[in-house]
Amino acid sequence: MKSGKKLNMLVGALLAGVIIAALTAATPSRSQEAADDPLPSWHNGPTKQAILGFVRQVTDKSGPQYVKPAERIAAFDDGGTLWTEWPIHVNHIQVVFARQRIKEMTQKHEDWKYRQPFKAILENDDKELAIRLKNLWNVMDLLRETHGGMTVDEFSATVRAFLATAKHPKYKVPYTQVAYVPMLELLALLRANEFKIFIVTGSGTDFIRELSEEVYGIPRENVIGSGPEYEYKETPKGGYLARKLNIDTFNLRTAKAENIQLHIGRRPILVAGNTDGDLAMMGLAAGGKNPFLNLLLRHDDAEREFAYEDETEKAIEAARSRAWTIISMKNDFKVVFAFQKKK
Amino acid sequence: MKSGKKLNMLVGALLAGVIIAALTAATPSRSQEAADDPLPSWHNGPTKQAILGFVRQVTDKSGPQYVKPAERIAAFDDGGTLWTEWPIHVNHIQVVFARQRIKEMTQKHEDWKYRQPFKAILENDDKELAIRLKNLWNVMDLLRETHGGMTVDEFSATVRAFLATAKHPKYKVPYTQVAYVPMLELLALLRANEFKIFIVTGSGTDFIRELSEEVYGIPRENVIGSGPEYEYKETPKGGYLARKLNIDTFNLRTAKAENIQLHIGRRPILVAGNTDGDLAMMGLAAGGKNPFLNLLLRHDDAEREFAYEDETEKAIEAARSRAWTIISMKNDFKVVFAFQKKK
Repeated sequence: MKSGKKLNMLVGALLAGVIIAALTAATPSRSQEAADDPLPSWHNGPTKQAILGFVRQVTDKSGPQYVKPAERIAAFDDGGTLWTEWPIHVNHIQVVFARQRIKEMTQKHEDWKYRQPFKAILENDDKELAIRLKNLWNVMDLLRETHGGMTVDEFSATVRAFLATAKHPKYKVPYTQVAYVPMLELLALLRANEFKIFIVTGSGTDFIRELSEEVYGIPRENVIGSGPEYEYKETPKGGYLARKLNIDTFNLRTAKAENIQLHIGRRPILVAGNTDGDLAMMGLAAGGKNPFLNLLLRHDDAEREFAYEDETEKAIEAARSRAWTIISMKNDFKVVFAFQKKK
Repeated sequence: MKSGKKLNMLVGALLAGVIIAALTAATPSRSQEAADDPLPSWHNGPTKQAILGFVRQVTDKSGPQYVKPAERIAAFDDGGTLWTEWPIHVNHIQVVFARQRIKEMTQKHEDWKYRQPFKAILENDDKELAIRLKNLWNVMDLLRETHGGMTVDEFSATVRAFLATAKHPKYKVPYTQVAYVPMLELLALLRANEFKIFIVTGSGTDFIRELSEEVYGIPRENVIGSGPEYEYKETPKGGYLARKLNIDTFNLRTAKAENIQLHIGRRPILVAGNTDGDLAMMGLAAGGKNPFLNLLLRHDDAEREFAYEDETEKAIEAARSRAWTIISMKNDFKVVFAFQKKK
């Protein structure tokens, strides 16, 4: 117990240092321009104007589009929307975590040498792993072995220990630094305008909670994701929660809209996503009585990030036909990551 | 759609009027005493001192019991803890709502005349209803018929229309006025000290959300209760959510602790409840590393409210043996309801 506490403190201190460095780096300049412009890392153009115009309208008490602060709900997808996740089987933070855990635990699991997807992980066979992870049963096996069978507190400590040293495989920087700078600016703009911001992600709720406050300024309780059932257990000193081995919620597609009702109970008025998986959230915003802004981030920047269109066909079609706002990483972002130079 | 909007506005205006009246009434005096004492409706004594001492300790930055604001999570049971619910089959707000709905809809349901628990409701047979509602299948049938089979928006409008005119069967005042004044003061004290307050109730999440902001100042998204699954549906204009006919979560006993993890992801440091059903939440607080305060409200005031001990045996035993704080309504509350005189 005591060593656990020490570890937690150490990890906390390390993480805090990393984050302060990231945030400092994320502020490109302290010039007057930045002070006047809440979105200095966005190129001027229709996307930036759409965002600024929307925020101005819904906060203008005398205007016809005014929305009360309590109803200013913003729902952000996480991977691919707030930070980089591509390609999933190599760079997605939970896959990196799972791969590391499998390697750490392999001595006690002789069978993994012969079982997929563990075999592909142990052999560093990325191509094979990509294929194997298209099968949901393999994903569930991987999650069960690496995320399950422990208490909520143990899982939290394990993730924090990982975050303290983990680096992004491509960019070689801590994961706390792979958030998109323009999106961090957008979060700050919304916060300054009394929006309540939620992360609505297919990733694990408890995993993302370990970094949401530090990386995004979004409190743990505002993370809505995938996860197992929990089981409350008593001890003479008090109770604790265990993570069961099932996946109770896969927070994907329509489940994202349904879990917004479960956790928030209001329609969002701003939704940001990057795939077909975010369409239900956007539909929910569009179906309400309030004005809304749906933002679809397109990964079209092979130079600074990646160019890919997997599972975005429906989202692009919907955004175009319904005049939702498409963000082009290539054309709208002056800066993608804090560690890169301005374009 | 338009008439729905008008109804909503009308109901909102009515409700706002009622609430302003209730809040005005809930402030017994504007004297200097009240200004200095955040809990003027509590008798001085060990309970009040335990509450004030705990809040002082966890907010004292230089003290050993300091808890950061982000970790100041408070979980309140609703019925019997924040407001009156006894006896359930007559006075619990959702039962009153269900009874009214059954009577409104009876013409289209000839079979209800012969089926329990509907028959008991239609015949105003409270004794029979009390027996029938001890059977969970009957509760589920009642919920299905009165709370299900509609959209989230329709349910919201139905509940708000009910709240605008509903009166407590015994006290003959709007339900917005049957909150316990000392508990409203406690909520205000916690809020002033940067606690995040959640209602963790066995009642329906979506039902309580329709009154939580107005009655308790607790936003919709901080209500964790029972409820059905939701189903997202698309229309050309956008999407909406339907309430399915099942009960996905009965937020009772250990489920309360488990749903705290699902929705909040932190252990509470203050828990208030009134039955065995709140023990798991209290155990969760007790099992953490932070200081905590568990409050068990005892209904021992037959004169001003009710005296009853149903399903509280384990809670009383736990509170006594573990030195948790027991609130006696009779001895600790100067005032119970705003509409009653001071004792």
